[in-house]
Amino acid sequence: MRIHVWAENMPLEIHEKEMRRIYPDGIEGALAAFLSKEDGFEVTVSRGTDPGFGLSPETIGKADVLVYWSHKHWRDIPDEAVERLQAMVLDGMGLVLLHSAHASKIFSRLVGTKTQALEWHEDGEKQRVVCTMPSHEIAKGLPRSFIIDSDESYGEYFDIPQPDELVFITVSESMDALRSGCCFRRGKGRIFYFSSGHETFPVYYQREVQTVISNAVRWAAPKHADWPVMTIEKRRNDA
Amino acid sequence: MRIHVWAENMPLEIHEKEMRRIYPDGIEGALAAFLSKEDGFEVTVSRGTDPGFGLSPETIGKADVLVYWSHKHWRDIPDEAVERLQAMVLDGMGLVLLHSAHASKIFSRLVGTKTQALEWHEDGEKQRVVCTMPSHEIAKGLPRSFIIDSDESYGEYFDIPQPDELVFITVSESMDALRSGCCFRRGKGRIFYFSSGHETFPVYYQREVQTVISNAVRWAAPKHADWPVMTIEKRRNDA
Amino acid sequence: MRIHVWAENMPLEIHEKEMRRIYPDGIEGALAAFLSKEDGFEVTVSRGTDPGFGLSPETIGKADVLVYWSHKHWRDIPDEAVERLQAMVLDGMGLVLLHSAHASKIFSRLVGTKTQALEWHEDGEKQRVVCTMPSHEIAKGLPRSFIIDSDESYGEYFDIPQPDELVFITVSESMDALRSGCCFRRGKGRIFYFSSGHETFPVYYQREVQTVISNAVRWAAPKHADWPVMTIEKRRNDA
Amino acid sequence: MRIHVWAENMPLEIHEKEMRRIYPDGIEGALAAFLSKEDGFEVTVSRGTDPGFGLSPETIGKADVLVYWSHKHWRDIPDEAVERLQAMVLDGMGLVLLHSAHASKIFSRLVGTKTQALEWHEDGEKQRVVCTMPSHEIAKGLPRSFIIDSDESYGEYFDIPQPDELVFITVSESMDALRSGCCFRRGKGRIFYFSSGHETFPVYYQREVQTVISNAVRWAAPKHADWPVMTIEKRRNDA
Repeated sequence: MRIHVWAENMPLEIHEKEMRRIYPDGIEGALAAFLSKEDGFEVTVSRGTDPGFGLSPETIGKADVLVYWSHKHWRDIPDEAVERLQAMVLDGMGLVLLHSAHASKIFSRLVGTKTQALEWHEDGEKQRVVCTMPSHEIAKGLPRSFIIDSDESYGEYFDIPQPDELVFITVSESMDALRSGCCFRRGKGRIFYFSSGHETFPVYYQREVQTVISNAVRWAAPKHADWPVMTIEKRRNDA
Repeated sequence: MRIHVWAENMPLEIHEKEMRRIYPDGIEGALAAFLSKEDGFEVTVSRGTDPGFGLSPETIGKADVLVYWSHKHWRDIPDEAVERLQAMVLDGMGLVLLHSAHASKIFSRLVGTKTQALEWHEDGEKQRVVCTMPSHEIAKGLPRSFIIDSDESYGEYFDIPQPDELVFITVSESMDALRSGCCFRRGKGRIFYFSSGHETFPVYYQREVQTVISNAVRWAAPKHADWPVMTIEKRRNDA
Repeated sequence: MRIHVWAENMPLEIHEKEMRRIYPDGIEGALAAFLSKEDGFEVTVSRGTDPGFGLSPETIGKADVLVYWSHKHWRDIPDEAVERLQAMVLDGMGLVLLHSAHASKIFSRLVGTKTQALEWHEDGEKQRVVCTMPSHEIAKGLPRSFIIDSDESYGEYFDIPQPDELVFITVSESMDALRSGCCFRRGKGRIFYFSSGHETFPVYYQREVQTVISNAVRWAAPKHADWPVMTIEKRRNDA
Repeated sequence: MRIHVWAENMPLEIHEKEMRRIYPDGIEGALAAFLSKEDGFEVTVSRGTDPGFGLSPETIGKADVLVYWSHKHWRDIPDEAVERLQAMVLDGMGLVLLHSAHASKIFSRLVGTKTQALEWHEDGEKQRVVCTMPSHEIAKGLPRSFIIDSDESYGEYFDIPQPDELVFITVSESMDALRSGCCFRRGKGRIFYFSSGHETFPVYYQREVQTVISNAVRWAAPKHADWPVMTIEKRRNDA
């Protein structure tokens, strides 16, 4: 399975030093490191600072699953790149969106709402991630809840449609709650959003978080029907 | 609209005194008091201590919506009463289940899971109720979140199917989170579960909680198709 | 309640004569005629042939619900008009999309898929509309199924996300099936898609179809929470 | 993976001869035959005519997935067997219900509605099965629709809650439509209902139908979280 990890890699000036200290190879490096250890995962990496924002067809065109971390520069991604990503997802590419990628144009485009909208404060509070769907493969191998020692706090109201499958809720120390592990299906594709992982906290080194993301990659990987979804089509050529 | 309020009215010995102090007319009395003030609501009341557990067809048979508060004595309700309630809901009666009625046989019967299962602790923590679906009529007239000063804490994992509409999540001071405002549709009927309201805290006197329950009654009230759902039927007599 | 009816009003040449014969006042005229008779409905009308495509803020800005019929010219609607419509829906305006409006940019934008994709053939087959959710207010007053004598046939695969509420399925004489009555919630807004009503058949004069649309308008009308969904916001100013 | 196939094996007198001609080894035999050929499927079989209705803990207790075909004798299954099955599903056993097993007590118990209710006629009409969710693994390897030459016709209104995932709709020659491929999640378990396969038609020899069932078994197989769902539990022993 071909996994492509993409990260914006343009931290705010105030975060730059802290991020480089925690993630010397960038967030993309940390994500790629643990994903590469999974059986059968072939991992490639690009960054928002690469030519074509690291999102050209040559770079990501063969991915089965795209793992996507973005932050403040979500507005910079050109609409045509977003449309290409959307077409790839509808055609079956899995998409795993992490943390502030809630604000990404591609997420908003795929679900139809202003996904930028949620409550947030960056004071490194303790977070508790609780499972609401134990039948789900993304919950496999995880405890019924786990603690993240420090992360940015996200809270409702989060402007997303009701998820097709809500797998996790995250609670912060100061009583924020977020639908934080959300599955959506669009066309032949599958999208998972997971909220943990601000760049100034070592969240992606935590085993449970890694398990969530590895499970999500496996869930989002193509396992769809083979026939094409055509936008102008005569009916029933097949039957 | 005919609203019937039913409460178990058999507090644990350790809660009896406190409950009678806060709710001199019982929880059913407090619920009936504010519901009676709503335009067009005609409210009747019965208790688990009444003949036939207060759930006989004569007592509740004409209700458009049944508001149901139960606690430790959920096992006492006879299966035949539960089956009658289930048939009434499937035939269109609204059902609003409050607090520990999550454990009621009727809830479990209507959704198919062990709804008794959730995490809980009765230490009167502060609770925050947050809205996850602002398009919903049960959210109308409420702020994006509100605080309940003291209540029992409930938390996931709560063994319910994914709700048809998830309207609220409640968070406790010590970081429990619960899908706390949950709509389910079954047959012609509508069911709303709302988690707030332990008998030793004056939760049902709070304006926001009253708004949730009044809104829920209006949402759950019959507005269904008229044709009968028959279990053995020949097809298409109508068309 | 202010209902605005909009129709493209640019039939294909081959349909023009037939459409004008069946709908001398246009489809918008036929829709407005029966909607105007509903208690409390104040109906206005515009057309795709009006200045600004009939979709300027002055024309539709006060609508509680927009009833929208479009066809082959969906590509002509400028993106900025689509974005304005999307913002209005997310802010609470109801949207009722009819027939070939499945292909409209606004529907596609709100749900994230290529809603243009479905199977179709225009041979005036008999259609049967069957109810799958009798608890739903849009099903109220309708039989368990009804026949439309002649309409264009639409069939799956229809590229939409699983609807939040699936109220109807329509079957054609030659065994097409479509999820034909679909509710979606986005932000504070509600969207209903209903598939019946090709311009060359007198479908919008049929009582059952009129009931579906009137019910849908009532369902989609604003009944949402009052607080603003802001895209950049500090948390919990309210609590 | 351990698959247990159970069939009622008590055909109506009028069907007996025809069923034995088409299915000399019973329906359970035909199901077991193709399932046994799947990689990693270890298949066992029992019948409603076996001691304990073929549903004793000794017989089915080790199954990862139970494939269940029942018909007119659904009322005969004792409630205690139904409760045991329910507990097994909630604890993670997959359940694939076929054809008239829509009426089974276990299905009704797991979803809360009178699943017996649907329209039906046994005149061997042609059926078309269409896919509504190409992202789903149960749709994999199948065309966008396929024809079954002859089967009993089932139609809406089918008294089930809205499925968590609706994968197929089936249409009959005389314009019945049924939500025919329906996923439900309950506790740690997964349930799939598929409507095809009356005992007097050779439906289970058709390749596409076999693919649906094999895919469903794989989807329903346990892949859940490991922690126990306890009905009375103190909170958060794990975190």
